[in-house]
Amino acid sequence: MASFDFSNPVKFYFGAGKLKLLGGIAGQYGHKALLVASDSAKPTGQLALVQQYLDAAGISYAVYDKFMQNPLSTLVHEGAQFARTENCDVVIGLGGGSAMDMAKGIAFCAVNEGSIWDYVFGRKTGTGALPMILIPTTAGTGSESNRTAVFTNPDTNDKKGLVNPLIYPKAAIIDPELMLTLPKRVIAGPGADVLFHALESYISKNANPFSEMLSLKAIELISRYLPRVYADVTDIDAWEQVTLASSLAGMAIDCAGTSLPHALQHPMGGLLNVVHAEGIAAMYVPFMEYTWPAAPEKFAVIAKTMGVDTQGMSLETAAASSVAVVRDFLAGVNMMPTLTELGVKEEHFDWLINNVLTTMKVVLANNPRVPDADTIREIYQRCL
Amino acid sequence: MASFDFSNPVKFYFGAGKLKLLGGIAGQYGHKALLVASDSAKPTGQLALVQQYLDAAGISYAVYDKFMQNPLSTLVHEGAQFARTENCDVVIGLGGGSAMDMAKGIAFCAVNEGSIWDYVFGRKTGTGALPMILIPTTAGTGSESNRTAVFTNPDTNDKKGLVNPLIYPKAAIIDPELMLTLPKRVIAGPGADVLFHALESYISKNANPFSEMLSLKAIELISRYLPRVYADVTDIDAWEQVTLASSLAGMAIDCAGTSLPHALQHPMGGLLNVVHAEGIAAMYVPFMEYTWPAAPEKFAVIAKTMGVDTQGMSLETAAASSVAVVRDFLAGVNMMPTLTELGVKEEHFDWLINNVLTTMKVVLANNPRVPDADTIREIYQRCL
Repeated sequence: MASFDFSNPVKFYFGAGKLKLLGGIAGQYGHKALLVASDSAKPTGQLALVQQYLDAAGISYAVYDKFMQNPLSTLVHEGAQFARTENCDVVIGLGGGSAMDMAKGIAFCAVNEGSIWDYVFGRKTGTGALPMILIPTTAGTGSESNRTAVFTNPDTNDKKGLVNPLIYPKAAIIDPELMLTLPKRVIAGPGADVLFHALESYISKNANPFSEMLSLKAIELISRYLPRVYADVTDIDAWEQVTLASSLAGMAIDCAGTSLPHALQHPMGGLLNVVHAEGIAAMYVPFMEYTWPAAPEKFAVIAKTMGVDTQGMSLETAAASSVAVVRDFLAGVNMMPTLTELGVKEEHFDWLINNVLTTMKVVLANNPRVPDADTIREIYQRCL
Repeated sequence: MASFDFSNPVKFYFGAGKLKLLGGIAGQYGHKALLVASDSAKPTGQLALVQQYLDAAGISYAVYDKFMQNPLSTLVHEGAQFARTENCDVVIGLGGGSAMDMAKGIAFCAVNEGSIWDYVFGRKTGTGALPMILIPTTAGTGSESNRTAVFTNPDTNDKKGLVNPLIYPKAAIIDPELMLTLPKRVIAGPGADVLFHALESYISKNANPFSEMLSLKAIELISRYLPRVYADVTDIDAWEQVTLASSLAGMAIDCAGTSLPHALQHPMGGLLNVVHAEGIAAMYVPFMEYTWPAAPEKFAVIAKTMGVDTQGMSLETAAASSVAVVRDFLAGVNMMPTLTELGVKEEHFDWLINNVLTTMKVVLANNPRVPDADTIREIYQRCL
């Protein structure tokens, strides 16, 4: 066991109906909220519900809902200006990972001057942020659990995370009742991402005993309960477990990071606006086949945690069996896209590989086996 | 899954040699430290080491080392006065549970007026506390992980915990190198207490999926590694796991509380100054035999986590097997005292039972099966 540090200052509120507490929670941190809401929060009635709870608590608010699948840094800066103009003193993020990351970026840029990219690339550190309350409406990114927010720079197509303790949310309200109308594709993609976060943090070279505990619990819960909510979106008991898994995996990546698949996918998000989880899913089997020989003990535990009876298997057989069980899991929620289907072509490879090797170095280095440019090309090629 | 909240704002520094970071950490929170140190911190050289690290960082300090096995509230008040007189702005606790709880009490009372018992019994809530850094030198109480500190009132013999979010330490430095000279009795007692915290929080009616994860990880680690450090106090790899287990169990009780054994033991600590872990150990087997039929699923998981091959067993057989494996664990570290050996006599029962039913009601109610006065008497009787 290497030495390690752990802290996570987020106050988590888990459970059906917890959204009701929003007014009281928001009142602890401010008087006027910037409400950063996803597109879907309107038709589902969730935005109206949030407004109702804020009204009841006497918290005023301004709404900002300009963003997209991969949040643009330009809109973060615009939102921060809006927050300042409106004199907001607390930020509420309502939506999936994009809305929550946008909320984090705005809360950060409302306090810190200049371009967010100076902070993303570590040229500046920042002095504070508006307090944030995050409310996930997908399960998901786990953004509510950690100090990361990922943005796309429309000038360079870089897609990269701001990782800064100043953007830990003060509170996260994880209410499974918000999941009961999700379309299948938005169950499957974010749900698969929970597995990706949990698995990649577990095998990361930065993993520690605490993060491994979080990762394995998330793997256990998501592999067991995602198929249930995919089959029946109204299964609230299963949603409780899936949403918990999402937050646990979000905590785990906060400790240990992600690894190869995230490194290979981010450039696609930046260049081609590929949906995060779909881009990763397209590469998962080749990633696992490439990586497990470098960490067979860990992949054997993953297989066992996902329900493979590994007793009596050799270590190698057990480790290799993790590939099949993950493939079955992804196939079960119809998450087996090819890169071609997602718009990635061979002509993009040079740009993508160069971007991986410059922008995603740290994430790449987390993988137990680190590919060079030729190997990355081979992996992309296999996934077309 | 019932809904639940989770937060733990402590910044944890785990690992061999982490004590070296003390100066830098303390400097984040204050300029002059009150150094609350256990008796044993002098002969082991740990106090001198801490002073050296503070000197090197330019942090001045005053030392307070007046306390005993069960920290007295009178000494907490005296220490708080001392902290004010010395103008200390940060408190460092160095020692076992008693020193850390004393540090927490002093940090709290240095800011909040009046008797600590008003806060223990919830008549007042408090407004703040001096920032605390806790450094356990036993593994142990897990006090470094949570917002509880237990005190004894010499006027009433009440022994009861202050449970208040204001006394979460800012930082906890968990350095296994501090354990390498512990005498066997101080390995066994606190080590057994880790199991007690983990097991009781796991079966507690207040347990939630997050706390259960922490509890089970602690059970797994302590049952596997305590025998190793008991056999060889210099086994640093095993100490890493034991100290981690201690902090995990401390987090788990912060979520879920303890249960029947702690309820039955606290009055003995208050009245007869019985060593915490020894008093609990004396009652553990009867407690488990009494309790498992009310939660057989949980006790079966405990047995499995402690290494029993429960496959093929009936639920009842698996659950009952947890009693034997815990008894073996305690016997293995020579922690099988009787209450008689600890100075408890039948003549004390009336006072003890009355104290359990008045002072320890909340902890008692956490148990899956809640005994009345007659049943408590029977349990005490069996343990003489």
